[in-house]
Parts: sequence; C-alpha cells; structure tokens
Amino acid sequence: MSTQWLDEIRWNADGLVPVIVQEAVDGKVLMLAWMNREALEQTVKGGQAVYWSRSRQRLWLKGESSGHFQVVKDIRLDCDRDVLLLKVEQTGEVACHTGRASCFFGQLRGAQWISIEPVLKDPEAIYGYMYE
Amino acid sequence: MSTQWLDEIRWNADGLVPVIVQEAVDGKVLMLAWMNREALEQTVKGGQAVYWSRSRQRLWLKGESSGHFQVVKDIRLDCDRDVLLLKVEQTGEVACHTGRASCFFGQLRGAQWISIEPVLKDPEAIYGYMYE
Repeated sequence: MSTQWLDEIRWNADGLVPVIVQEAVDGKVLMLAWMNREALEQTVKGGQAVYWSRSRQRLWLKGESSGHFQVVKDIRLDCDRDVLLLKVEQTGEVACHTGRASCFFGQLRGAQWISIEPVLKDPEAIYGYMYE
Repeated sequence: MSTQWLDEIRWNADGLVPVIVQEAVDGKVLMLAWMNREALEQTVKGGQAVYWSRSRQRLWLKGESSGHFQVVKDIRLDCDRDVLLLKVEQTGEVACHTGRASCFFGQLRGAQWISIEPVLKDPEAIYGYMYE
C-alpha cells in the first residue's frame, strides 16, 4: 500500500504531529496526544489509537495499562497538514489518567483553575497504583 | 490581579502551549493554535481569542483580517497543564483560512486524504486576495 498519505503530513522536527482526540458520539474533547509515522500506521492498521509517548519515548497503545482503549471512527488532517483530529469511541468512558472522562477538567474562573469534572473511576483501581 | 493562574500553566521551551479551539454550540473542532502568556492574558481580558502566530512571530487577534472573530465561552486546562481547550462562538461560521467552517476538512479514506467540508466563503472575498 502506498505511503504517500503519510508523506503528505508535515511532521515536525521531532517527526511528530499533535493529535486532538474527540469522542465521536458527543463531541467531547478528550485529550491531546502526539503521533509519529509508526503510531499513525499502527492506528490505521489496528483501528485503535496508538500514540508516541514523549515522556517514555516509545509507542503507546492507549489503554494498554488502563484497559481504556480508543476505537477510531474518523481521522482528519487540518489545512496546514500538521495537526490530526481523531474521532474515537472511548471504552470505559475514561480517557484521563486521573479517572475523568476528559483531560480538560480545569476551568478558568476568575483567576483560578477549578476542577469541574467528576472522577468516574479511582485511578488506583484502574492502574493498581496512584498515577502521579 | 494575581497571575498565579498563568504560572500554573506549563509553557513549553518557546513559552507556548497548544490550544484546541472548539465551537461551543455544536462541539465541532475548528482549529489548533498556539498561545504565549500575553496571548492568553489578552484573550481573557478582551473575551476574544488572541493567538501567537508562529509563522509571523507576533500576536494575532483571530479575525483581525478576516472578520471571523472567536468569542470565548469557556477556557479549559488539561491534567498535565500544558494544553488549553477554548470553547468559542465562531463569528461568520468560518474558522479556516480556506473559507471552511473547520480546518479539519481532510478525511482519511483508504490511503487518501479527501476534502469533505464545503467552502462556505470564497477566501478571496474574505481576505481580498488568495491566501496561499
């Protein structure tokens, strides 16, 4: 299979692009992750989101430790060809390592960030240990 | 006013964070932009999205040349404190410089990126010239 579609993406100096991850059903923005070529190839091949972990410097199948996989429904590229948008079905309804549906749970109110989303699952129950 | 809420953001080495921009009403993801401290301060102060243009290396009031301003409804910070999510009301229903509602109009089908969103306004009519 031709890989021209991969060459058409403008990977940054580190060979990565940011990936916006959105729940396909309700449109909730879940997280921002990063992909390299291999992550995107594996994502397309397997139908589940695979990212590049910048902190661990390795490929990361989302859900590999939490069980919260992301089934990919739609892959979009932006006008500048340097950002991806993934529409997914989030298994377990939790995308965030804190046990919340979305990573974007801090809301700016006045001059403060207020946590406004409930913890749906105890991180200790998800990972077997407290994450951070 | 205290600026602690700005210090709590983990700006990258260039003093920037990526900003996901989402239409508040229908949840459509419009674009990914970048902000530095000043851009975020001006956004909060004025209620309209101000970004940092990496290509032009200057602050950029979204809509300054197109008239397509973004009225900010909600500002979110993610769990790692290094990505923002802006929910906005997009004036003119066009966020993309190509005249489309969203920048994410390229859809992966098989091994091809297919443009699937209609051009709502002729870019020439928006900017007075062809943009790119």
